[in-house]
Amino acid sequence: MSKKLLGIDLGGTSVKFGILTLDGQVQEKWAIETNILEDGKHIVPDIIASIKHRLELYGLSNDDFAGIGMGSPGAVDRTQKTVTGAFNLNWAETQEVGAAIEAELGIPFAIDNDANVAALGERWVGAGDNNPDVVFVTLGTGVGGGIIADGSLIHGVAGAGGEIGHIIVEPEEGFDCTCGNKGCLETVASATGVVRLGRLLAENYEGPSAIKAAIDNGDSVTSKDVFTAAAAGDKFADSVVEKVGFYLGLATANISNILNPDSVIVGGGVSAAGEFLRSRIENYFQKFAFPQVKKSTKIKIAELGNDAGIIGAASLARQFIEE
Amino acid sequence: MSKKLLGIDLGGTSVKFGILTLDGQVQEKWAIETNILEDGKHIVPDIIASIKHRLELYGLSNDDFAGIGMGSPGAVDRTQKTVTGAFNLNWAETQEVGAAIEAELGIPFAIDNDANVAALGERWVGAGDNNPDVVFVTLGTGVGGGIIADGSLIHGVAGAGGEIGHIIVEPEEGFDCTCGNKGCLETVASATGVVRLGRLLAENYEGPSAIKAAIDNGDSVTSKDVFTAAAAGDKFADSVVEKVGFYLGLATANISNILNPDSVIVGGGVSAAGEFLRSRIENYFQKFAFPQVKKSTKIKIAELGNDAGIIGAASLARQFIEE
Repeated sequence: MSKKLLGIDLGGTSVKFGILTLDGQVQEKWAIETNILEDGKHIVPDIIASIKHRLELYGLSNDDFAGIGMGSPGAVDRTQKTVTGAFNLNWAETQEVGAAIEAELGIPFAIDNDANVAALGERWVGAGDNNPDVVFVTLGTGVGGGIIADGSLIHGVAGAGGEIGHIIVEPEEGFDCTCGNKGCLETVASATGVVRLGRLLAENYEGPSAIKAAIDNGDSVTSKDVFTAAAAGDKFADSVVEKVGFYLGLATANISNILNPDSVIVGGGVSAAGEFLRSRIENYFQKFAFPQVKKSTKIKIAELGNDAGIIGAASLARQFIEE
Repeated sequence: MSKKLLGIDLGGTSVKFGILTLDGQVQEKWAIETNILEDGKHIVPDIIASIKHRLELYGLSNDDFAGIGMGSPGAVDRTQKTVTGAFNLNWAETQEVGAAIEAELGIPFAIDNDANVAALGERWVGAGDNNPDVVFVTLGTGVGGGIIADGSLIHGVAGAGGEIGHIIVEPEEGFDCTCGNKGCLETVASATGVVRLGRLLAENYEGPSAIKAAIDNGDSVTSKDVFTAAAAGDKFADSVVEKVGFYLGLATANISNILNPDSVIVGGGVSAAGEFLRSRIENYFQKFAFPQVKKSTKIKIAELGNDAGIIGAASLARQFIEE
């Protein structure tokens, strides 16, 4: 019988698990709550216990698995298989994640950064069509990403490769970013960034708009509210979406002028706006991309949703498949 | 006896040749004029004749070589080993460069784009310290480059990877670029771009400046003149260099936020300004790079000068070394 892969997507609120075939089909998936109490010391034991429980339930043993892969927040050491500084897990100190999981489960283990892992997932069985050159941008609470070039995930010299959210798109008068710089893509294209941009544009917008009124009133407005209003014909909201499209078109064109990937895949919560957002990005991408790049690099919306994490994590374990 | 590598740097005015050791030391080098007459049909025969002549002169035979590598302008098909559309060679039609050279010399042959090849050279034995993640930017008549990420030269899906000159640095009011877009890095950081930027800044500069006076008079001013004047204390020229540094700092920071290379190496004629230019780029790079990237990616000036081409070309032939 062909072996299976196990993918783990570790997040601040839940840990998602998937059992996959070697060609990336999800056979089983489940999730547990992330218990970040007591410096997150329960997280790894909880993961191990959950896997043991499920393997028993499904009548599987460690011999049925080629390997386990995990995506994690924080700074991941892929060689030591450790995680440091994952503050949403209360993991300030270095965690020996790989050593613990390999010792308890007897299955080879690999780990990488969560945004990189989601990129691998979308590239493998999602919108990336398993192409060797794919860029993934995730628009959520922050803006992250992963770069696959010539078949390799690009980590760079210090592991900061793929910091797409920190591409500077407004060098002169940008918003302050949490990273300490100004004008980063994240400040205008994350969920909060879209609203921040709306607040700026509201200052000079004249004309009726329920979204502008809500922003000016100090009401709670989400990026989803902005996209919904724009799609329903609110001209102010539409101007905000247009500007988000400008920034994302500029950033994806510049990434593509450097790497000429087969596709730039846009995922994360904000990408739920789908074609409405994609077409705006595409318009500006076409304006800013080099002629050969315009013709060859595609802008796509992600296809895997939340499963990108477990699928990409499982793909990390493909290195353990014995020919 | 250990085998050797032969590197060929094909350009519009000359063809440069180098015989190198397997670890990248240049043992012999020579050059011939590029004869672009009659649709450039003499170029490949001239290259073959020159190599045959030199091998005889040095008492070497095809058995002494692991392989030949070449860097060429135009659109290179690495698999077919052909070149198309190299207009400065009068090669509009596809040229069977590899087939001709392999048939006549009996040595395995590899070919890539000239900017990519120069990147490989600087990475191998120049400023790149043979690191797996290196970006090369060449500032000359145009602005080109090459990206080496995770040890691979990045070509992208249609071979347009590394079009660093066409990163957009002025999305709103940039100069027209030969590529058809506006605001490309090449429009402000190539040799002509520096002068074009000077002409724009001269419109609003008040104060004494020999360079501004020359520009306003319509005299012939080169980028070298601008750098020389700036270094000698001309405040207007200094403001031009500062702005060039801003654009190059922005572009190199954004490349590095995406790829986190060990170094971004700046070469080409404009880089002759050396540390005077590098330090300006570095200042803006520090402003625009993500914190981890600031600390780990270095901005360097190229070390190999004109030899980058033959050395990088020779490095393409390392794939033929038998273990």
